Amino acid sequence: MTAYSPGEFRALSFHDATPRFADGTDTPRAYLERCLETIALREPVVRAWVTINQAGAREAADASTARWKAGQPLSLIDGMPIGIKDLLETRDMPTQMGCEAWRGNFPKRDNAGVWALRQAGAVVLGKTVTTELGGAHPGPTTNPFDQGRTPGGSSSGSAAAVGARMVPAAIGTQVGGSIIRPASYCGNFALKPTQGGINRGERQATSMSTHGPHAGSIEDMWLVAIEIARRAGGDPGRLGLFGPATPPPARRPMTLAVMEAEGWRRLDDASRAAFEAIVDGLRAEGVTVLRRADHPMVEAFEQSIEGVQALTGTITGWENHWGFRNMVANNPDGVSARTKAVLSGAEKMTAEDYRAAILRREQMRRAHEALAPLVDAFIAPASPGPAPRWTGDIAGQPQVKRPTGDAVYNTPSSALGTPVVTVPMTSVCGMPMGVQVMGQPHADAEVTAIARWMFETIPAVAA
Amino acid sequence: MTAYSPGEFRALSFHDATPRFADGTDTPRAYLERCLETIALREPVVRAWVTINQAGAREAADASTARWKAGQPLSLIDGMPIGIKDLLETRDMPTQMGCEAWRGNFPKRDNAGVWALRQAGAVVLGKTVTTELGGAHPGPTTNPFDQGRTPGGSSSGSAAAVGARMVPAAIGTQVGGSIIRPASYCGNFALKPTQGGINRGERQATSMSTHGPHAGSIEDMWLVAIEIARRAGGDPGRLGLFGPATPPPARRPMTLAVMEAEGWRRLDDASRAAFEAIVDGLRAEGVTVLRRADHPMVEAFEQSIEGVQALTGTITGWENHWGFRNMVANNPDGVSARTKAVLSGAEKMTAEDYRAAILRREQMRRAHEALAPLVDAFIAPASPGPAPRWTGDIAGQPQVKRPTGDAVYNTPSSALGTPVVTVPMTSVCGMPMGVQVMGQPHADAEVTAIARWMFETIPAVAA
Repeated sequence: MTAYSPGEFRALSFHDATPRFADGTDTPRAYLERCLETIALREPVVRAWVTINQAGAREAADASTARWKAGQPLSLIDGMPIGIKDLLETRDMPTQMGCEAWRGNFPKRDNAGVWALRQAGAVVLGKTVTTELGGAHPGPTTNPFDQGRTPGGSSSGSAAAVGARMVPAAIGTQVGGSIIRPASYCGNFALKPTQGGINRGERQATSMSTHGPHAGSIEDMWLVAIEIARRAGGDPGRLGLFGPATPPPARRPMTLAVMEAEGWRRLDDASRAAFEAIVDGLRAEGVTVLRRADHPMVEAFEQSIEGVQALTGTITGWENHWGFRNMVANNPDGVSARTKAVLSGAEKMTAEDYRAAILRREQMRRAHEALAPLVDAFIAPASPGPAPRWTGDIAGQPQVKRPTGDAVYNTPSSALGTPVVTVPMTSVCGMPMGVQVMGQPHADAEVTAIARWMFETIPAVAA
Repeated sequence: MTAYSPGEFRALSFHDATPRFADGTDTPRAYLERCLETIALREPVVRAWVTINQAGAREAADASTARWKAGQPLSLIDGMPIGIKDLLETRDMPTQMGCEAWRGNFPKRDNAGVWALRQAGAVVLGKTVTTELGGAHPGPTTNPFDQGRTPGGSSSGSAAAVGARMVPAAIGTQVGGSIIRPASYCGNFALKPTQGGINRGERQATSMSTHGPHAGSIEDMWLVAIEIARRAGGDPGRLGLFGPATPPPARRPMTLAVMEAEGWRRLDDASRAAFEAIVDGLRAEGVTVLRRADHPMVEAFEQSIEGVQALTGTITGWENHWGFRNMVANNPDGVSARTKAVLSGAEKMTAEDYRAAILRREQMRRAHEALAPLVDAFIAPASPGPAPRWTGDIAGQPQVKRPTGDAVYNTPSSALGTPVVTVPMTSVCGMPMGVQVMGQPHADAEVTAIARWMFETIPAVAA
């Protein structure tokens, strides 16, 4: 294992392999076999996967190979090996949600997004590790760049599998910081789409969860998202993801604003320096970058989102508590103490407390919406530093509250329902740390275009 | 069986029994036993129930009896026997959804609303018949006022159980016309709440379904709704049902408007005459009643909702099609031809078709919203006539398209997300037909107050 450098690390990509599928010098089956070799090499330490359907994947890759040979691929991701976070149902693999109470759960159904991926010809390779029920209680996955550190959560396996070059893309989900934080820690690109942008299928129980792609390249990130949305649309009642069928070209922003948020005071010096170097790089390219001290509306927005981390926990805790209560009632020993503590907090709330929290969130959304005419997007660190060290609970000692890291830089976009792309363009102490770009709802393609421009134009920073 | 007369029929009520629980002259256990006697008498013909948990209900009624005796009831519905439509999960009874593919399904979980009812002390007596998956394919239930007629659907058993005086209230669900239509056919009061007003728990897959109470009295109708909402709130991200903890007192409206909609031309002469007699009664009480010819905004609204019945089918068909496809794939013989036809139609749609349908629905909502300053509420027939005759499919003959009746008068409020209360105040040919009151979103209590005033003030009409 060597130190991560954002300028040198080359993640696995798929979009640039398809011309070789078309001209016959490579095949989806051969691509898959290379992924399986990497998995054989790295999985014993990284532990990104719960289940791998090798036979099913080979069959799907062979079918894709035949389509490319016939000049009839189903989409630009036909043949792409992809991991699915183990919260989403898959017809050919169990869905165990990182939770003892769900061990062996096998409903033999495809989530809407998984169904869409198969329709697009993608090769559903396996289920990736999630923290227990997408919460704080971690699974066995380690960070691909340092096995003594967390990969982040809750999309631990999806982020680690992409960071370890096992697959070019994987599906994650976020309710607090579960896509963008692990992507930041594992050197991924990732899109947390506009709330409702990608159909969550059977997973509609919470008001601010999203499904989104982790990928080794921004092109693959976009292609996975749009190929799902073109087939499965958005959540019920929502308009779904907007954007082009091919990756948005890079676009220079005119004005960006920094979102310091609650996380600013938790940043260590090296991480802050890395982020400030990116801001300097943007200014050197002629982009106006506003800070809270520069404009009263930015300051007003920053003030409006004070307390957002606690608020997202409150809202999601309440929304999940019927399901959790039923689960604990049926299987008291099948759920961790960490998750039981969340349930216990939620059961102290009333419906009126929840209503007040939703109104508070609505105020934050209006404050952010008001900034649309002023800034093209916000930028911020994607996490308050690189992945922290954590190697497991120690018997007899109190459990760490955030073993998969701190979601402080992710809860704003979750609460606001806004699209975010994280870009792997800095490193701190040899570990990846992402920079995120956040836009207005439905500006997913624009945010992707700005993120792409930043990645292609601004020098990477190793701090 | 005698002809139904809205002025004479006395449905079962609960709110007026609780004073006798308090003074010890009656008990929830005795109330339950009377319900069980009625069920024993009527169920062989009405067939409203899939499962009855007699032992569990008696135990719950005894616990309630003890609480009333101790002067510590949990709520105003403590001890109320209630039926739950068999689409909602219950921890103590299977949830079979009127569908062969779900036979024996028993997840041992309580839906959020069922959980709330138990917290309020209600006696969850059994699961009521639903049409297959809440769609058009009927169950075995017959109309309590004429066994040769449909009880309506999809909340067939809930409406029939209340109409047959088996229980004072039952929970139904609506995506097209599944609460208000069967309530109209079976002489119930019923509330189809504001979209999102009552937490649907695990049933979040569609964008315009609601859960709501059928009841023998408007007081019980309101109490059931508000006792659920006070505990379980609304759907994730929604503010939930607004209104008082006790039934809203009657309130005279100043201005009502008639919603003729697509259903007007399908009304038979007797049904139209019955409804016009109610309009005359309102005018006689000094209420201004606007028709589409009276005001251009009413006409504009009527035009805006042209095609709403087809639109609701399109939207819900798409939203359900992942689940239906998975189900049919796993159990091809477990689903009716009627439901397969719906799936087949939905699978011809694209995500862009769905997006266009959602935009069309949004335009309807804006057109309705614009009328808020002009009218207190809309009124309309709750169904285009009384329950039609239908005694079952005949082998070898083509299946009837709408064996549980026509939802033409229900799809507008489903699409608009508006609250509706139906009032059993007319009869046609000896069968009940409801009059519905529809308000703006979140005006559930006001709509209930107007409906109550109409029921208490305007003479019932037998046509």
